[in-house]
Amino acid sequence: MKTDLISTRLAIEQGLTHPQAVAEACLAVAQSKACEHVFIQLTPEALRETAQQPKISQQKLAGLAVSIKDLFDVQGQVNKAGSVVLQNQPAALHDAVAVGRLRAAGASLIGRTNMVEFAFSGVGTNPHYGTPAAWDGLYDCAVGASGQGHVPGGSSSGAAVSVATGAAFIGLGSDTGGSIRVPAALNGIVGFKCTARHVPTQGTVPLSTTLDTVCAVTRSVRDTILAHEILSARHVPKAFRPLSNYRLAVTRNMMQDGMDPTVTLAFERSLSKLRAAGAHIDEIDLSELNELTAMMSTGGFSPAQGYAWHRQRIAQAGERYDPRVAQRVMRGRDMKAHEYLDLLQTRRHWIDRVESALLGYDAVLSPTCPIVGPTISDMAPGEQRDAEFFRVNALLLRNTSAVNTLDGCGISLPCHAQGELPVGLMAWHAAMHDDTVLQLALLLEPLLMEPLNPASTCKP
Amino acid sequence: MKTDLISTRLAIEQGLTHPQAVAEACLAVAQSKACEHVFIQLTPEALRETAQQPKISQQKLAGLAVSIKDLFDVQGQVNKAGSVVLQNQPAALHDAVAVGRLRAAGASLIGRTNMVEFAFSGVGTNPHYGTPAAWDGLYDCAVGASGQGHVPGGSSSGAAVSVATGAAFIGLGSDTGGSIRVPAALNGIVGFKCTARHVPTQGTVPLSTTLDTVCAVTRSVRDTILAHEILSARHVPKAFRPLSNYRLAVTRNMMQDGMDPTVTLAFERSLSKLRAAGAHIDEIDLSELNELTAMMSTGGFSPAQGYAWHRQRIAQAGERYDPRVAQRVMRGRDMKAHEYLDLLQTRRHWIDRVESALLGYDAVLSPTCPIVGPTISDMAPGEQRDAEFFRVNALLLRNTSAVNTLDGCGISLPCHAQGELPVGLMAWHAAMHDDTVLQLALLLEPLLMEPLNPASTCKP
Repeated sequence: MKTDLISTRLAIEQGLTHPQAVAEACLAVAQSKACEHVFIQLTPEALRETAQQPKISQQKLAGLAVSIKDLFDVQGQVNKAGSVVLQNQPAALHDAVAVGRLRAAGASLIGRTNMVEFAFSGVGTNPHYGTPAAWDGLYDCAVGASGQGHVPGGSSSGAAVSVATGAAFIGLGSDTGGSIRVPAALNGIVGFKCTARHVPTQGTVPLSTTLDTVCAVTRSVRDTILAHEILSARHVPKAFRPLSNYRLAVTRNMMQDGMDPTVTLAFERSLSKLRAAGAHIDEIDLSELNELTAMMSTGGFSPAQGYAWHRQRIAQAGERYDPRVAQRVMRGRDMKAHEYLDLLQTRRHWIDRVESALLGYDAVLSPTCPIVGPTISDMAPGEQRDAEFFRVNALLLRNTSAVNTLDGCGISLPCHAQGELPVGLMAWHAAMHDDTVLQLALLLEPLLMEPLNPASTCKP
Repeated sequence: MKTDLISTRLAIEQGLTHPQAVAEACLAVAQSKACEHVFIQLTPEALRETAQQPKISQQKLAGLAVSIKDLFDVQGQVNKAGSVVLQNQPAALHDAVAVGRLRAAGASLIGRTNMVEFAFSGVGTNPHYGTPAAWDGLYDCAVGASGQGHVPGGSSSGAAVSVATGAAFIGLGSDTGGSIRVPAALNGIVGFKCTARHVPTQGTVPLSTTLDTVCAVTRSVRDTILAHEILSARHVPKAFRPLSNYRLAVTRNMMQDGMDPTVTLAFERSLSKLRAAGAHIDEIDLSELNELTAMMSTGGFSPAQGYAWHRQRIAQAGERYDPRVAQRVMRGRDMKAHEYLDLLQTRRHWIDRVESALLGYDAVLSPTCPIVGPTISDMAPGEQRDAEFFRVNALLLRNTSAVNTLDGCGISLPCHAQGELPVGLMAWHAAMHDDTVLQLALLLEPLLMEPLNPASTCKP
């Protein structure tokens, strides 16, 4: 793993390096083969200008590189949300709230990252700007031994690869059903979806106004806490408790269904390690999770809310959408208002019951995704692969989207061994449990990492 | 006009009367011909018990009679919302929040008042429990010289007649499109729809969860302020400003369209009186009001939100609904989720623009309803009269519902002369302008009243 932001800032403070040197190193990565299709727009001038005169003592981000998902308004840039239909829109007049907060904290913006068009899936493919290949940020090497690229997960695909490869320290993104946590898992880095209300969404292209969460990927939990503090303009209290003091749970229902062998191995090994380190992990029913399929049978929030936003654009230029995105948007056309209102109410009652079931627990542990990321070629465009694409997409998003439906928070931590495809372990809970989940993640992070094998041939 | 609550409380404090005597007088009115069809359930025991031992020094309502619209939970009573389909529901276990607040302030509950079934129209008819005849609370006589009963307006029909006749001092009700202000106008009393967020709706049968407002009718503005302070658990500051200090407006668009001769006469006379008393009243465009018809073309909030609540009940027992109510509920069946979401967003932008247009004004003056209430026989059940019923309903609710769409507040004050059919003048503004509108209403109230003609033959 490359050094994280906090270590780099310390090195700068100690005079061991300078923001300009770090900026040039980031730029070199961003322009390398590992970052192919990662950036829709690179802004080296902006990066260099901010890095030149960082106010290190005052600004938490010390002029270090931050990448911005192509979903956010940045003053003077066109916000395309990974599409071509928005490419002739006027440039944004103002920064999105989240971008403004990062900038005020001393971020240098390295560029706009690729994403799933309009954030409408979790696989990470984009037929307009190419699909970035997943990079294992934990062991710093390309994902997949065969040399075939694997999908990076989405929708914040470029954000995750930019952080895993070392082009950026923080990848600003969004998570509506898993769009931060899924690519974090598939790229061996940390992705935290906070409780949605913590960060304003102004200046973003909406997917679901109910579920959209502005958040970020980083290389370490402490960087995640730093990014969250800046994005939410709040302080995360530090209250150290030993791991044995946390009341943890795994669920009998849904979250561990259909795990592939790689995920099964990594997840079971992780639970064993945590128990060996003193963790108390109960197995709980949480049968409420089985209701999600029925609850979402009328389509869920994103298609209906997406269709309300896209209707006119898709009518005028539907042929310029990714056909797989257009299909999902069009699912929202026929949902009835009363079905939507029922969904709001069913969700509210479901949240009440899940919150009751989780009373007394500090967090639930689940695999972030039950499967590893498939190869890019298996997910390539083409109607004959659509069924498989949508099957994989549903599996990748299944566990993470349950947390969005809960209005909750969750962090994905890498838990695979060197040479394995990346796997994420998600610690999650209901709304406003962010601080506990983050403090717990600080303890889990070192326990989940395997000792590095120096004989490995994997090199950056 | 019968004395209001504050005068009566003063008389009690001075030993001129006793709450028990007042309670008996209220009961006598409630059981008289004037209150036919006004109460769905009378509770003389509860009334007498509370009136017997009022804590006058501590409780603002001094044990005086308050009527409760049949839409509110009252512990031990079945909440039917003016329907027969709910009459076999179990009794409420708890008071609605509003009922609890009134009770804690010393209210004696005289009974449950009749209403339009499920609050679904503004005319005030109810085929299940009969239609109360309007009573002119300002001049204390039956409405209409011909001896034919006139509709009381709705949906808080019984609430208004209970207060106009003297059976109650405060009529607790709700206003989703005008359900407090329309019956206040048609019964010559005061009806204030506060900004919706001021009073919790817990314990009520919902019509539109977006627009529903818990509020009340009274006989005077100062009683309205008292009732609002109790219902909202807040204090309305008293800041006396002369009338000439208020910046008032009337609108060129919509609000004065289609006024009948009685309303035209009363409204124009009222403006002349206010100007003569020093009021500055500008004529403003407010052309945004012309957008309401298009905005509501997909049905508005109440049908869709109502359908979500009624769907199962109407499928099982639709033939036991008032056919005119069932028609309106069923309008919500086909609205699409994206149309609903569009309506939410269109409304938000419309509110922004109307609020901008009203900047610099303290209140807008309009007729509460552009027409007077028709006779009950003209609105009697029967398909051949449905078209006329819906035409009248739309006109009665037109001006008031614009204020609900605005998320605003408005007060209806009687402004007709003795011998005329009752007419209301509405002073209104956007959300959270409640206190200014209430303070203004204190000044307008005496100016709008005609001096009583002692030669009038109209007697209670």
